[in-house]
Amino acid sequence: MKFCSLCGHALTRRVPPGDRLERDVCDHCGQIEYQNPKVVVGCVPEWEGRIVMCRRAIQPRLGYWTFPAGFLELDETMAEGAARETFEESGVRVEIDRLLAVMDVPEIGQVHVVYGGRACSADPHPTDETSEVALMAEADIPWDEIAFPSIYHGLKYFFADRARGQWSVHTRRLTSRWKRAGAKLSD
Amino acid sequence: MKFCSLCGHALTRRVPPGDRLERDVCDHCGQIEYQNPKVVVGCVPEWEGRIVMCRRAIQPRLGYWTFPAGFLELDETMAEGAARETFEESGVRVEIDRLLAVMDVPEIGQVHVVYGGRACSADPHPTDETSEVALMAEADIPWDEIAFPSIYHGLKYFFADRARGQWSVHTRRLTSRWKRAGAKLSD
Repeated sequence: MKFCSLCGHALTRRVPPGDRLERDVCDHCGQIEYQNPKVVVGCVPEWEGRIVMCRRAIQPRLGYWTFPAGFLELDETMAEGAARETFEESGVRVEIDRLLAVMDVPEIGQVHVVYGGRACSADPHPTDETSEVALMAEADIPWDEIAFPSIYHGLKYFFADRARGQWSVHTRRLTSRWKRAGAKLSD
Repeated sequence: MKFCSLCGHALTRRVPPGDRLERDVCDHCGQIEYQNPKVVVGCVPEWEGRIVMCRRAIQPRLGYWTFPAGFLELDETMAEGAARETFEESGVRVEIDRLLAVMDVPEIGQVHVVYGGRACSADPHPTDETSEVALMAEADIPWDEIAFPSIYHGLKYFFADRARGQWSVHTRRLTSRWKRAGAKLSD
């Protein structure tokens, strides 16, 4: 940030009184522009044993596969946001059943929260963000073409819990090691 | 927001192409200023069966009791943030053990994430944000003087799980009904 959102004057980078971190501070009106992590919400939507998966039509990771996920908006709960993203990205209406995973991605300033849900309609179709929507059994999941580590681990948690017949809430700290040559999404 | 953070020009409120929500958009440089919910992280720190509780020295809810909690910062995990807030607000070092609760507070654009932890040092002391720090047994908790609903419910979850000898992750949607005359923090 370079300019104050309240008065438009140039911002200064410094530690405000009583704080311990550098912030963007406006010396004209006193505004402190805090930057905090954002919440990404996603859903693993199940339909008769299969999962709604979307092929990304946008960057980053264009062409890779994901379950529906996106930034949490104001005025919605995380479960509502996960259901909204599912409809926006796949055309599928979903009932959210349970919290599945809470993952930290501090290197990109994000928290990823994944829910499990039941698809209420099986009318998947491509959208602005999705070039292809598919209903996949576990054996169909293209593990080497998954978009992001939180999608990879969210799917692994889902299938592992389902196989043992008991749902739980998983936590994990993700890194960007997977971006290095030769590294895997699971790293 | 009134002015563009990148170029300082006045912002316009409208729905950008391909979006469905109104945003603050800069018609000069094209910047879209997204506003998203913030994450508050907290910790119920246990020390020999008692809980580290802090009396707030700042608004809002000055004088009311809370366990340590505050806004998640960039470059930290939620567990790291919860431990940092515990030290900043009470002077107590804590080892985070488990995720305890994930709560939505959409009316104020927040997500509250609470962890359970073990205090490693019992040297609690007042800080800039805390006028008094106390080690409280369950019977000592001042239920009518708790600062916020997420603190109330976080404590209830902690004591209920501890009593039955099994930890779990709790989810809840909180409202601002408690602010109405005669309403309770549990509402």
